[in-house]
Amino acid sequence: MVALTTKGRATRQRIIEGAAAYLRADEPAGVTLDDIRAITGTSKSQIFHYFPDGKEELFLAVARHEADRVLDDQQPHLGALTSWPAWERWRDSVVARYRAQGRHCPLGALMAQVGSTPGAREVTSALLNQWQAHIRKGICDMQAAGLIRAGLDADRVAAAFIAGIQGGVLVLMSTGSVTHLEAAVDTLVDHLRG
Amino acid sequence: MVALTTKGRATRQRIIEGAAAYLRADEPAGVTLDDIRAITGTSKSQIFHYFPDGKEELFLAVARHEADRVLDDQQPHLGALTSWPAWERWRDSVVARYRAQGRHCPLGALMAQVGSTPGAREVTSALLNQWQAHIRKGICDMQAAGLIRAGLDADRVAAAFIAGIQGGVLVLMSTGSVTHLEAAVDTLVDHLRG
Repeated sequence: MVALTTKGRATRQRIIEGAAAYLRADEPAGVTLDDIRAITGTSKSQIFHYFPDGKEELFLAVARHEADRVLDDQQPHLGALTSWPAWERWRDSVVARYRAQGRHCPLGALMAQVGSTPGAREVTSALLNQWQAHIRKGICDMQAAGLIRAGLDADRVAAAFIAGIQGGVLVLMSTGSVTHLEAAVDTLVDHLRG
Repeated sequence: MVALTTKGRATRQRIIEGAAAYLRADEPAGVTLDDIRAITGTSKSQIFHYFPDGKEELFLAVARHEADRVLDDQQPHLGALTSWPAWERWRDSVVARYRAQGRHCPLGALMAQVGSTPGAREVTSALLNQWQAHIRKGICDMQAAGLIRAGLDADRVAAAFIAGIQGGVLVLMSTGSVTHLEAAVDTLVDHLRG
């Protein structure tokens, strides 16, 4: 990325947020750079100044923005899983977020559009790694406080949460129901409680 | 579907299996009915005799065939989860199946191609329902034998397995690693053991 001034960073961010809002409203397959340029009120040269590689680079930046939102939407709960009520509030925030999102996953739709490039894989793996690290830290904090048995493998159970949430959301996108998402998170929290 | 003679059913099945093998080898996006006709050695009128609605109907039939394989590949273990060694053998068969499959999911690729039609959703939900019913029956059988605590909600934990496996496979398709799939299944089996 080019080095940007404060104003440049703000413009770049404005383009990303405008594009994200636009792409959220529909399937991104048919969206062109000209559409993005029009709705964000930027010129072609501005777009290529901030995203020299064009559409793929802009879409990846939007994907990164959406990935950040996935974690932001779970805060402050995800960052402070230090009591059972905190775990329940986090559980509720995850279920509520995906119930509201329903069948259309903005990040998934973007990823399908960008394709399986190294950049796209990096956005996905960074999101999953950060998410899992938050959950693992929550389990370790609870273990340190004597609230979860010490023998439990925090990293493995955190990975199971990631798999269960991803699969629950996948089933939700197919069936429209949060049943599997709730079953996965609730069963794993039960497992933590022992 | 038209009523078929024994010979007709065999021909229809031959077309489905030939198409499935061909579609497994690559992304199905660019495959045409003419390709399928050529590799299965059938005429255009034969294809339309067995699949009057054309490509979408044939692809759905292939998707149903692939969905059946998902369950078949887990047998005989999935149908007889009546002891802890049986659960371990099933766990190993699931992990081995998806490790071998790797990043390319034939059923997922077909589904992406068919799109979110009622027929496609029916194939997905039938697969998930049957899969979950097998796991639930295994849990209930173990409860009846006194090997799993009676208070555990068999249907909810079976749904958690489905979510965990789906999510584990999704992460595998992105990262190439079975870590999350193993973490989900192992953690849930641990939970059954109590």
